[in-house]
Amino acid sequence: MEIAELGEFGLIRHLTEGMEMENASTLKGVGDDCAVLSPEDGMQTLVTTDMLMEGVHFDLTYMPLKHLGYKAVMVNLSDIYAMNGTPRQITVSMALSKRFSVEDMEDLYSGMRLACSRHHVDIVGGDTTSSLTGLAISITAIGTAAKEDIVYRSGARETDLICVSGNLGAAYMGLQLLEREKAVYNQQVAETREQARRNGSNVDEAIARIPQPDFSGREYLLERQMKPEARRDIVERLHEAGIRPTAMMDISDGLSSELMHICEQSHCGCRIYEERLPLDYQTAVTAEEFNMNVSTCALNGGEDYELLFTVPLTANDAVAALEDIKIIGYITQESLGRALISRDGNEFELKAQGWNPLK
Amino acid sequence: MEIAELGEFGLIRHLTEGMEMENASTLKGVGDDCAVLSPEDGMQTLVTTDMLMEGVHFDLTYMPLKHLGYKAVMVNLSDIYAMNGTPRQITVSMALSKRFSVEDMEDLYSGMRLACSRHHVDIVGGDTTSSLTGLAISITAIGTAAKEDIVYRSGARETDLICVSGNLGAAYMGLQLLEREKAVYNQQVAETREQARRNGSNVDEAIARIPQPDFSGREYLLERQMKPEARRDIVERLHEAGIRPTAMMDISDGLSSELMHICEQSHCGCRIYEERLPLDYQTAVTAEEFNMNVSTCALNGGEDYELLFTVPLTANDAVAALEDIKIIGYITQESLGRALISRDGNEFELKAQGWNPLK
Repeated sequence: MEIAELGEFGLIRHLTEGMEMENASTLKGVGDDCAVLSPEDGMQTLVTTDMLMEGVHFDLTYMPLKHLGYKAVMVNLSDIYAMNGTPRQITVSMALSKRFSVEDMEDLYSGMRLACSRHHVDIVGGDTTSSLTGLAISITAIGTAAKEDIVYRSGARETDLICVSGNLGAAYMGLQLLEREKAVYNQQVAETREQARRNGSNVDEAIARIPQPDFSGREYLLERQMKPEARRDIVERLHEAGIRPTAMMDISDGLSSELMHICEQSHCGCRIYEERLPLDYQTAVTAEEFNMNVSTCALNGGEDYELLFTVPLTANDAVAALEDIKIIGYITQESLGRALISRDGNEFELKAQGWNPLK
Repeated sequence: MEIAELGEFGLIRHLTEGMEMENASTLKGVGDDCAVLSPEDGMQTLVTTDMLMEGVHFDLTYMPLKHLGYKAVMVNLSDIYAMNGTPRQITVSMALSKRFSVEDMEDLYSGMRLACSRHHVDIVGGDTTSSLTGLAISITAIGTAAKEDIVYRSGARETDLICVSGNLGAAYMGLQLLEREKAVYNQQVAETREQARRNGSNVDEAIARIPQPDFSGREYLLERQMKPEARRDIVERLHEAGIRPTAMMDISDGLSSELMHICEQSHCGCRIYEERLPLDYQTAVTAEEFNMNVSTCALNGGEDYELLFTVPLTANDAVAALEDIKIIGYITQESLGRALISRDGNEFELKAQGWNPLK
């Protein structure tokens, strides 16, 4: 079905049909000039926003729309958790070119709704409009936290331990795999087309016979790239263990880049250890296959959406006892700089080579 | 200067430099994973968002970037006023193609900052990224209102008076003027190029000699199109006069379309009078020149950013005494339908022919 048939308001009504609000603070969702939220007593409001552009942040040749919707929401929720908060509402703006159908938007929205329902978040508004080329998605997430619970980037202090959840570099290696297979496929299509032309056979049928890429054994890397999970579980686990991070942020541009933000805003230095970087087996194997240094992937890969945080030295035992969290180094005086200690004991200055969307 | 030289964080730092937060509720602006806001006791939070795409919502051949920034903020603040609230913060996301320079972004941001400073609004965050084609802007505005002050679209009741601020159709006529002059200019450029080619003269010099369009006497229409003002003054005036609208929204897609939203959500009908539609003299003259029906422009033109609201019949005298507000009709039972009474006394069914961005 063409989107123009439903119109803007019809489309929004269709996509948000049957959505029930999960948060008591959501007084009014979609349908007026504004959403109306009722702040809880004594709680502060967290606001974050992210914009995803087709061809820059995602490639629909291998990214299913449902996964894209899921990921677009997750990257915003991740920012709320990174402040030690709880996400409550999002607004969703989309600009679509004519090639998208109502069914496409249903797929995209079903991914968004799945992400929201898993994290008990309400979709309270947005804007749906057209674009001359491609798809643009802009999401704003709103969360809450008690004043004393909010964790900024600026709170790290000398001797604090530097911790990372999960493992790093997997989403980046997933992207490499997808990009390689896309190039192989495009090459095969070009060859098949040429051959069919020479033989006088049916081009479309010949292209349809090209085998799909085989990613078996690499599913984990693809999932990390296409369906990242915001680490609500880590925030909850820290809370239950009575550990309050001194500084925290989520890893979207790569560990190095994020750690440098914390050092800059906390006016401190750091020492992290290459041998302590958390890596998944598939990440290591695939990096080797691509002739890449796996530590570089972990340091600069980006899109991990893991949490990077610091805790007081006194929390050492409590943090070490928690699953899926790794201590990778510690905070130093600012004058000592930002150091990476390699496996062979050499010291390197940490450099941010994270993703720069403007380059 | 190229944007890549500064990078994302450098650009944001540069554009937000020296910005002072005006609202006590803004605890933390740009610079962490989230902005942190402190809700005032007993106040509710209003959230609205709008996305503007180059080629769909704006044309940079005649829209200066500073005006675009101003307008992009205003259309969001307008939604907060339309709930009878006060805007407090915005987040700004932008996606830019390579043709934009740091100076371009300074222009865009200076318009946004001007709009914010006039309305005492803080820019608390956002996202700056790249686009393969053109410019995309997504703004989210956050406001506050006491629970009892919030005005929804659903509160209109039978016998309520229907009121409109300012005048209608001017922004639409401004757009017609700009589009006409753009077509004329493009035609002149094509002819000049052809002539210069034949004469062997310098093409660029010949194009530079094409006179700029003369808009004198039409400045008001251009201003309404390029630099709309959110009607904070109307909200304040109503408040001072002790008048609480029963329903309210801002007119972005055209009076007809918005009035139908109010009727639908309030489960009522309406009667409005063509002779009472507020029109500016320039709008009427220009509509005639374009051979357009000025009432159609006022009903369906869009982008007025005036306020459409209903008040109880008992507020008749109080509203009539206020400047720049016009009573254009009244609310009826739903079964009586939505009627426009023409100058000659005929009754027509009101139809929304407002702008559909998805058509």
